[in-house]
Amino acid sequence: MSMHNQKKVSRRRFGLIAAGASAMAAHGSGAKGASGQDAGPSEALPGIWQKRFGTPEQLTPVQTRTYPPAVQALHQLPPLQQCPVPLEQITGRMSKRGYEARLPLAPGEMIYGLGLQFQSVLQRGRKKTLRVNADPVGDAGDSHAPVPFYVSNLGYGVLIDTARYLTIYCGGKVKKDGPHPAPTGDAQTAARVAQLPKSFERYDMDQASEVLIEVPEAQGVDLYIFGGPTIREAVQRYNLFSGGGPLLPRWGLGFWYRVYGQARQEDVLSLADELRTNQIPCDVLGLEPGWQSHSYSCSFTWSDKFPDPDATLFKLKGKNFHVNLWEHAFTHPTAPFHKALFPYSGNYEVWGGLVPDFLGKEARTIFGDYHEKALIAHGVSGFKLDECDNSDFTRSWSFPELSRFPSGADGEQMHCFFGLRYQDTIQAAYQRRGLRTLGLVRSSHALAAPSPYVLYSDLYDHHEFIRGVVNAGFCGLLWCPEVRDAKDPEDLIRRLQTTIFSPLAMVNAWYIRNPPWKQVDREQNDAGHFAQGWAQLQATCKRLIETRMQFVPYLYSSFVRYHQEGIPPFRALVMDYPDDPQTWAVDDQYLMGENILVAPVVAGQPVRDVYLPRGTWFDFWTGKKMEGGRLVNMSVPLEQIPVFIKSGTLLPLAVPSLHTAQAESFQLNVRAYGPGTLECSLHEDDGSLNPEIDVLTLTWAEGQGEGSVRRSGSNGQIRYSVQKWERRFT
Amino acid sequence: MSMHNQKKVSRRRFGLIAAGASAMAAHGSGAKGASGQDAGPSEALPGIWQKRFGTPEQLTPVQTRTYPPAVQALHQLPPLQQCPVPLEQITGRMSKRGYEARLPLAPGEMIYGLGLQFQSVLQRGRKKTLRVNADPVGDAGDSHAPVPFYVSNLGYGVLIDTARYLTIYCGGKVKKDGPHPAPTGDAQTAARVAQLPKSFERYDMDQASEVLIEVPEAQGVDLYIFGGPTIREAVQRYNLFSGGGPLLPRWGLGFWYRVYGQARQEDVLSLADELRTNQIPCDVLGLEPGWQSHSYSCSFTWSDKFPDPDATLFKLKGKNFHVNLWEHAFTHPTAPFHKALFPYSGNYEVWGGLVPDFLGKEARTIFGDYHEKALIAHGVSGFKLDECDNSDFTRSWSFPELSRFPSGADGEQMHCFFGLRYQDTIQAAYQRRGLRTLGLVRSSHALAAPSPYVLYSDLYDHHEFIRGVVNAGFCGLLWCPEVRDAKDPEDLIRRLQTTIFSPLAMVNAWYIRNPPWKQVDREQNDAGHFAQGWAQLQATCKRLIETRMQFVPYLYSSFVRYHQEGIPPFRALVMDYPDDPQTWAVDDQYLMGENILVAPVVAGQPVRDVYLPRGTWFDFWTGKKMEGGRLVNMSVPLEQIPVFIKSGTLLPLAVPSLHTAQAESFQLNVRAYGPGTLECSLHEDDGSLNPEIDVLTLTWAEGQGEGSVRRSGSNGQIRYSVQKWERRFT
Repeated sequence: MSMHNQKKVSRRRFGLIAAGASAMAAHGSGAKGASGQDAGPSEALPGIWQKRFGTPEQLTPVQTRTYPPAVQALHQLPPLQQCPVPLEQITGRMSKRGYEARLPLAPGEMIYGLGLQFQSVLQRGRKKTLRVNADPVGDAGDSHAPVPFYVSNLGYGVLIDTARYLTIYCGGKVKKDGPHPAPTGDAQTAARVAQLPKSFERYDMDQASEVLIEVPEAQGVDLYIFGGPTIREAVQRYNLFSGGGPLLPRWGLGFWYRVYGQARQEDVLSLADELRTNQIPCDVLGLEPGWQSHSYSCSFTWSDKFPDPDATLFKLKGKNFHVNLWEHAFTHPTAPFHKALFPYSGNYEVWGGLVPDFLGKEARTIFGDYHEKALIAHGVSGFKLDECDNSDFTRSWSFPELSRFPSGADGEQMHCFFGLRYQDTIQAAYQRRGLRTLGLVRSSHALAAPSPYVLYSDLYDHHEFIRGVVNAGFCGLLWCPEVRDAKDPEDLIRRLQTTIFSPLAMVNAWYIRNPPWKQVDREQNDAGHFAQGWAQLQATCKRLIETRMQFVPYLYSSFVRYHQEGIPPFRALVMDYPDDPQTWAVDDQYLMGENILVAPVVAGQPVRDVYLPRGTWFDFWTGKKMEGGRLVNMSVPLEQIPVFIKSGTLLPLAVPSLHTAQAESFQLNVRAYGPGTLECSLHEDDGSLNPEIDVLTLTWAEGQGEGSVRRSGSNGQIRYSVQKWERRFT
Repeated sequence: MSMHNQKKVSRRRFGLIAAGASAMAAHGSGAKGASGQDAGPSEALPGIWQKRFGTPEQLTPVQTRTYPPAVQALHQLPPLQQCPVPLEQITGRMSKRGYEARLPLAPGEMIYGLGLQFQSVLQRGRKKTLRVNADPVGDAGDSHAPVPFYVSNLGYGVLIDTARYLTIYCGGKVKKDGPHPAPTGDAQTAARVAQLPKSFERYDMDQASEVLIEVPEAQGVDLYIFGGPTIREAVQRYNLFSGGGPLLPRWGLGFWYRVYGQARQEDVLSLADELRTNQIPCDVLGLEPGWQSHSYSCSFTWSDKFPDPDATLFKLKGKNFHVNLWEHAFTHPTAPFHKALFPYSGNYEVWGGLVPDFLGKEARTIFGDYHEKALIAHGVSGFKLDECDNSDFTRSWSFPELSRFPSGADGEQMHCFFGLRYQDTIQAAYQRRGLRTLGLVRSSHALAAPSPYVLYSDLYDHHEFIRGVVNAGFCGLLWCPEVRDAKDPEDLIRRLQTTIFSPLAMVNAWYIRNPPWKQVDREQNDAGHFAQGWAQLQATCKRLIETRMQFVPYLYSSFVRYHQEGIPPFRALVMDYPDDPQTWAVDDQYLMGENILVAPVVAGQPVRDVYLPRGTWFDFWTGKKMEGGRLVNMSVPLEQIPVFIKSGTLLPLAVPSLHTAQAESFQLNVRAYGPGTLECSLHEDDGSLNPEIDVLTLTWAEGQGEGSVRRSGSNGQIRYSVQKWERRFT
């Protein structure tokens, strides 16, 4: 594993900043005053420039930020002499519609990001209106997590600091009295653009153009430009500006199973037994709405299905299961804190419940304190924060955009912030107890990197779910392509493979009484009629889940690098190969950590094309060597999701364990892929909030029987050991 | 045919009003001044109330209207004593977001309209943001024709006079300090609501609620309330306020065929010969982009594929074909009027072409004059106005919302107006030549009823295409569920059946060289490889098209009633049966004219449910009698689209003809459905712009051998004659 940063990274403060602390104070810099004329650009932090237009709104992601920037880590990135976008070429203009900004776009420049977009990865030539919408079925910009941040393959990123539904045109717009595209552009650029897939329309992609941004209602806006020199460093800077990735609890990287929504406590315990008996790994059991005495809206109180929640939690803990509880924020009158919350909620209800004003300290405290004392203190390890993504277009399931909140936000702004500040509210409760958590959430926005939450959706197209993994990495988001129902066993296996090689490996069986590998048909499943040959399908799924467990050490280290350096653990190929036009439009493959390429397969595909970037790659399953820099059409046997290891990789795989706390999870089989002396790093810490993180450097030279392990520091948690060193290439 | 209005309706002025004429002047009434405080409500026209909030924008549908209201026809509707919505209950409020308005919603009240919505008919409980979007794949309000007009089953309509992308919440929103829905509503109302299909979520449908409307950017808004007493009269009033439906050229009701996009003039002539030789009826041939020397953007000039357009048009006219030309408005530099148009266009180009400012007289004149002299004068009968529906979310294919136009409109306003004023521009050219036209268009908006244009879309879901027919009738729109490609012969037949029983019966074969009945597979078709047994499929399609020709007299009269009385020729069941809850959610059946119910079938359905409203109905194909007031599950033989005739109908069907000018098209077989003395009306005129319209009253009493025909007036076009009187019921 060729991780760059193998020295021990010094401990840094991780956590939420005090509510109300000024953002400018938090990052120790910033533009002139909060009002007045366009401010000259300034380098806000190393490699990050701020340009202010007009008088920005008060309620913006940066102005209301809850995590401080990771200043020290930003200082460790290569210094830049100047802003990568000529600042004088960035212009702004106020109109009665709001505020417009324009940024230059170079010939052949490609644009990515804008949040969790399901339908497209490459945004050049496209228009997006970044509305929060739980049902983003078109490619118009609606998203669970529409992030006003984009990055360019030329090596910079742009944050438009707004909580409005902005519209962005990523090129393609020509003014009648402005410069017109030349009949033919530069030949070299045109040739590079021509390498995009034929299905891709190229517009003026080989020509100079502009990014146009329109922020409704605002009378000004701050732009933040994040330097590279490459797209990867630009994303790192954005993530570090956000506060860096979260430090995950190790159990969060194991396998998650969400239990039937109507399950009673004895059903949950019996499922837990079944998983352990059948030796199917599992770290987290998720409870769906049935745990609450009232949901839609929520009482946040145990229902009579769980007469003894403490005993249930205790028993599950004894078997090393962590428990995650479903909820949403709309607070039912029977919730114990309903009365206290009333003055600190919006003027409209949802499902008869109050809408907490999470932008205000009071609502955060009331809501968070209750969660801390009534649930977290009793052993609940995390939450699934549902319905925070403006399901209003689905049905009348959210607060209107014309809502008003005590913090001064209207409904549009609150929709942008709602998922994010909801996460912060719960996170603060965990921090007060000194606990890490990992949760699920259905909405997010800008500066979300530090939040230990993974996005999910009620949509279910497998192609879109894969594209979600690719896109989330551009904008400080994590995405869970969960497995719910499946058409048939093939579909189940293919979807399970994708979730196994994703930030959060989860089966969400809320709709069926028994695990889907026993029966994919819902009615049959609920009736207890298991499919013929289900044991074989279960065995296949078990092997896949065991594969996840093998990757936990590798994934944990990838997340530590997200935390320390801002490198997304899952990301698009273009982020590591920006100068290779063949990577520009790839939306069905991604990188996992530093050295692994994943190319999931959707049911019904007996073969698929995989683009292997330059260099040599090895098939994870067979060890077969493949030369990169080309598109490979390969057959894809059902049990083998295409996974490729970069030559030069020392890959530490854990012995499959039933959960991440088992000793086996720290026993490593180290595989060498490629010749020469190989090295990799693993990270270990005590699981606390602000830990000393030891770095284990594994080295193995060709010809040696065994490799060596070197540890930096000691946090008292020495558990990793190497069991086997093996060559895995031909 | 029990048409209510059988007296000769007096001639009334039909046509565009002079550009620039004030809307208030045009309908001779209106609120106090264009600025100032909220004006008290006033009855603007009979049964139509206006309520002004704040200072409305200048560029609104009413303020820029181009057709005068049909005042005389409005006076013929039943007078109303008071506004059906308690005017004091309609409130407004300005915010920094724009202008909000609230209207009461009664328990059990159902809401319809909001333009060409593809995904839903019943809007109660839903939120819609009315954006112009060529790709409306979700149910969020995006539409080719988002009309800010809704109607209620309680018998009134509301026009929100704005050209902004307004958001409307049709109930379901509850204020935390406002009245809350009762635990259980009124039992009778609840029972009625419970008759909605089970799949339908009912929210607070049996409770009182509010309609919330948010108009962005505006500092005021005019609301117009259209009284009933029923939903049908409310829609009539809206359509008459708009100016009444268009007087169609009779040929527009025949069959349309759009020719292969790359066809040369000899290919078009040869196709015309083929249709006549094979006796397949056709009135209109449409030419796609290939006719122009440059398209995307448009030169509006014949290409070298048509070296002699005049001769081609002359030959086609000789065979009674009308020619419709595809175009869009984005004006290429090679268009002869490009230079003249330059100052009267928006500041952004599309596909290198100018965007005409159709809100200004200059652009309308330049664009319209050219069309009149260069194309209409040479015999072009109409146009297909493409790409006027903001395809920006599809690709970078339109002008940005931040565009500016000489008229003062921004891009958002212009998108709302663009399709509509484009239609007006072409319509004015036809009017100057004293010609009727019927065209196709991809966008429309409020007050569109008088415009002789039928909407179409590049989307293609058959269910949505059927729903389009249902929804268009609420808002003064016409919709063409055109046939393009087909999966297989069944799909072709099912889609053809829907288009045959729709406002415009068309096969759009732009993508294939030969008619689809010869070969549905595109590649095979283009290679000239016809499917086995194609002659049989052609015969089936021919019979279907002949069915269309039989209905031309009935349809023509239905359109005359749309023109004279504002009754939509195609409309939802709820419009005629508002008190029957079983009709409230029906989105796959519609009424055609006064007496016919159509229930199209989508390929793959061997049976379907049809809801027959109260009364007795007869199967059009078999004459079989069926009692209504119930849901009937019926088998649907491939060649018989379910069509039902209301008992008491005298149905005049033409002898199938090759085109609508043939004598056979006026020779009638009159079918009696049901006992007793039956009567119906047909309309005949000279085809001019402001004709004397004769009414033929057909009467047939049970027991008589033949019926009688009575004509009011004589316009010199006595062509109708009855060939046969027959009983068609068992």
